[in-house]
Amino acid sequence: MSGAPSLTDRASFLFWSQEQVRYGDTDRQGHVNNAVFATFCESGRVALLHQDGGRIAPVGTEFVIARLAIDFRAELHWPAEVAIGSRVQRFGRHSLTIGQGLFHGETCVATAESVVVLIGQQSRRPVALPPALHASLVLFADP
Amino acid sequence: MSGAPSLTDRASFLFWSQEQVRYGDTDRQGHVNNAVFATFCESGRVALLHQDGGRIAPVGTEFVIARLAIDFRAELHWPAEVAIGSRVQRFGRHSLTIGQGLFHGETCVATAESVVVLIGQQSRRPVALPPALHASLVLFADP
Amino acid sequence: MSGAPSLTDRASFLFWSQEQVRYGDTDRQGHVNNAVFATFCESGRVALLHQDGGRIAPVGTEFVIARLAIDFRAELHWPAEVAIGSRVQRFGRHSLTIGQGLFHGETCVATAESVVVLIGQQSRRPVALPPALHASLVLFADP
Amino acid sequence: MSGAPSLTDRASFLFWSQEQVRYGDTDRQGHVNNAVFATFCESGRVALLHQDGGRIAPVGTEFVIARLAIDFRAELHWPAEVAIGSRVQRFGRHSLTIGQGLFHGETCVATAESVVVLIGQQSRRPVALPPALHASLVLFADP
Repeated sequence: MSGAPSLTDRASFLFWSQEQVRYGDTDRQGHVNNAVFATFCESGRVALLHQDGGRIAPVGTEFVIARLAIDFRAELHWPAEVAIGSRVQRFGRHSLTIGQGLFHGETCVATAESVVVLIGQQSRRPVALPPALHASLVLFADP
Repeated sequence: MSGAPSLTDRASFLFWSQEQVRYGDTDRQGHVNNAVFATFCESGRVALLHQDGGRIAPVGTEFVIARLAIDFRAELHWPAEVAIGSRVQRFGRHSLTIGQGLFHGETCVATAESVVVLIGQQSRRPVALPPALHASLVLFADP
Repeated sequence: MSGAPSLTDRASFLFWSQEQVRYGDTDRQGHVNNAVFATFCESGRVALLHQDGGRIAPVGTEFVIARLAIDFRAELHWPAEVAIGSRVQRFGRHSLTIGQGLFHGETCVATAESVVVLIGQQSRRPVALPPALHASLVLFADP
Repeated sequence: MSGAPSLTDRASFLFWSQEQVRYGDTDRQGHVNNAVFATFCESGRVALLHQDGGRIAPVGTEFVIARLAIDFRAELHWPAEVAIGSRVQRFGRHSLTIGQGLFHGETCVATAESVVVLIGQQSRRPVALPPALHASLVLFADP
């Protein structure tokens, strides 16, 4: 990924979604529980993959997650708003790699990379990404 | 419900399920978050309504919850096991009222009443409870 | 509660908070899981009890929930915004009863009543509600 | 990590914990939501780091997570039991790398690597791992 801007760089994202920390997102350590960051990543991912309320997976297919890697960079506390920037890092044959930055104000609280695979809803087997899908996401791809 | 044994009475339950408190179930107050009690009630309810891995709702129907009332009786902390006793309090025409007791060791940490309604999966409208469903649950009904 | 306006009446609420349904809030029945409604009720409750980022429980005390009763009035699906109206139904000696309406657009998807008790953070025993607490909430009390 | 046994190999784990899939762990795709895998990893991690009900972090310190990478290998459905094997992959100066395998019956549904950092509870800054902590975990270290 040499040359790609850092996921901690707000300016590298064109696609944004917002989440509110819920009281119930905290755990006994007083901060937001780490699994909630996985939920925030999902919220950003599905927003990117369901633009304008539609979904970009063709009929009869859906995305499933194959890998999620989160780097936790700062503790997050309730109450807070989180802005999630999402971009496509890489188009594979059946999969997309999505890079994300999670920001609370000026602080990057986490970065993440997810790999999602397009599968048939019945077959549960990988399906090639259609060109139209590239087209809807290329705007949000890594420069 | 005069005459019915208290939901705090372990001996009043014939149907039991078990849950483990997860670290992530806690909140910033250090105890198990109240919404997790709703999840525990659901776990007991669906265990009762899916005995032996099958489901007692007829094909083409499913249960949805219409009311949930939880009385919180003691704080619960991680780690802990919770035993959930469930019984049918009342058979309605389209609905069941389920009474539950949640126990941590000898302590009743919560009691709950839920009303679940049988609906058509397509119509999303109430459907009469079939007699066979009564038969599968009558053993677990309020004496 | 004779005379009190129905919890399904938007006009009966002066205090509002907003929640976004998350993808992960759904369950295998395709709708928002019932325990998430408990979380939404909590979000509204804590917003009311921590106005302007402060908290209205005196130093050394906190609120714990004693009872939660939710009436589920409509299924809720992702994506959606939920507006939560909260009002004080009753001031007790150590407790508050909070009434809530959860709305998705014009639809009231649930109503709820919660009883929260003020306790000492060390003693975990009920503490009388201080007059200042009444004062901060009276504006949001049942007319 | 050349030479280390694969995280998909059950025989490579000496430390095990168990989780039950809850109904509410599912999402609208019908399977267990990906963020719940993060919760299962946490359950295994905290079990390893709080053996026998005690905690191995010295007084005044706690572990926080710095990185979590999950490889999703199979879909998981309700109801199910999950066995989580955990082992220490690497001892750092202030951190531990924990490797995990999540198994449903004979199927490895996910593998994960987590990095946890020991910090001061007040300072929120890294603290060197004490030798006693090594000693309690060396049995569960990568061979």
